[in-house]
Amino acid sequence: MPKNNHPVVILVQPQMGENIGAVARAMGNFGLSELRLAAPRDGWPNPKAVEMAAGAESIITNATIYPDFMAAMHDVHLAYATTARPRDMEKRVVEPRTAMAEITGHSASGNKVALVFGPERTGLANEDITLCDTLITIPTSEENRSLNIAQSAVLIGYEWLCAQSDVMQVTRELPDIAPQEEWHGLFSQLEGYLDAADYFRVVHKKQVMWQNLQNMLLRSRLSAQEVRTFRGMLRALWERRLGEKS
Amino acid sequence: MPKNNHPVVILVQPQMGENIGAVARAMGNFGLSELRLAAPRDGWPNPKAVEMAAGAESIITNATIYPDFMAAMHDVHLAYATTARPRDMEKRVVEPRTAMAEITGHSASGNKVALVFGPERTGLANEDITLCDTLITIPTSEENRSLNIAQSAVLIGYEWLCAQSDVMQVTRELPDIAPQEEWHGLFSQLEGYLDAADYFRVVHKKQVMWQNLQNMLLRSRLSAQEVRTFRGMLRALWERRLGEKS
Repeated sequence: MPKNNHPVVILVQPQMGENIGAVARAMGNFGLSELRLAAPRDGWPNPKAVEMAAGAESIITNATIYPDFMAAMHDVHLAYATTARPRDMEKRVVEPRTAMAEITGHSASGNKVALVFGPERTGLANEDITLCDTLITIPTSEENRSLNIAQSAVLIGYEWLCAQSDVMQVTRELPDIAPQEEWHGLFSQLEGYLDAADYFRVVHKKQVMWQNLQNMLLRSRLSAQEVRTFRGMLRALWERRLGEKS
Repeated sequence: MPKNNHPVVILVQPQMGENIGAVARAMGNFGLSELRLAAPRDGWPNPKAVEMAAGAESIITNATIYPDFMAAMHDVHLAYATTARPRDMEKRVVEPRTAMAEITGHSASGNKVALVFGPERTGLANEDITLCDTLITIPTSEENRSLNIAQSAVLIGYEWLCAQSDVMQVTRELPDIAPQEEWHGLFSQLEGYLDAADYFRVVHKKQVMWQNLQNMLLRSRLSAQEVRTFRGMLRALWERRLGEKS
């Protein structure tokens, strides 16, 4: 997907410069770059927006200003508006994850998509919502539903990035988990020590006790090198014990 | 799952009261309630934390204070630490979504899980990370990797709530989409009007033109009532046209 077909973010009548900056920061964190402001309350440029952008200053300096929401939407094919409160309107409402899966598809098909946020205090007016195709509502706990625009932008941006399948590669499982034969060697050694130490005492309980021990150790998912380290440690313990006895 | 087995959030040496408050707010938004502070830099209580909590003040007033991270972990079975930078340590690293799926399972099994955040400036010290089982890294764009603790807490809380499958029910598809027979009635009516108006002109092009028109209209996903409204509108248009001709 060409970068210039990422969704654009449109802030409708944004009030505080700090919030514009926080939105830009979230955009930068999650790979969005085009910001449009429709009738920002305090005019433009706004130094507080630059201050809060924290690494995303270029998004602020490249932001484009429009006299109203409709003008900011001139080339947009599909608009998704984030709304806090439910609206009594015949609009689809989806969660951020669903929205971003859809938007990824729309963008890949060459459609320009807008992510729309309303004024901080009031949210979008109904006539602005009418211009939008779909509403995004972020799931929250029933008791504390209020998210500010900075929080919302972080979540929307994050879900956008997550929906770009090629970037979800930060997971790192432990490398180089020891193969079973390494464990077998460790277990033989340990069982020998424990038998010699009469650890299991009651013969008919040994099987369960020994299984439990092996399971505990296996859960550590040691690497082959770590198994060897562990065996060295066991040997050291065992030989000291012999030394004490002698 | 009993509420008191939700994960606890542990802030290790948190620096700014505002950030403690922002974390509490995010916890409240996403259904987490137990906050522990290990050695907060500016002491406790901290009025700035209450100010920023925005509806989650009870999380601040019920927060418990510990002299160090180990003390705050006394009853924790499994700890997941959110870290920004990759660590040169043999720890599993997972994304928030994977982490929260795992933690939901651990919590349901009766294990107490901690979500751990380090000091704002430096992040967790290596000896604190050693106490944690798994690291959570939030995927970001390569160019802007820096997330503050408030942003991280929002994302972690959100993924926790999303992992509680019974709450992801904010989606609302349009209710009452008109059944095909309603559409058939509309299309018959409209085709009659258009034929009568000689709209299609070139006979062999009619099929494609008419299909395109129907597809356009179907995409609107009207309800049965809306189809009737639309038909009334068409009828009004058509009858006015006749009136003009006469």
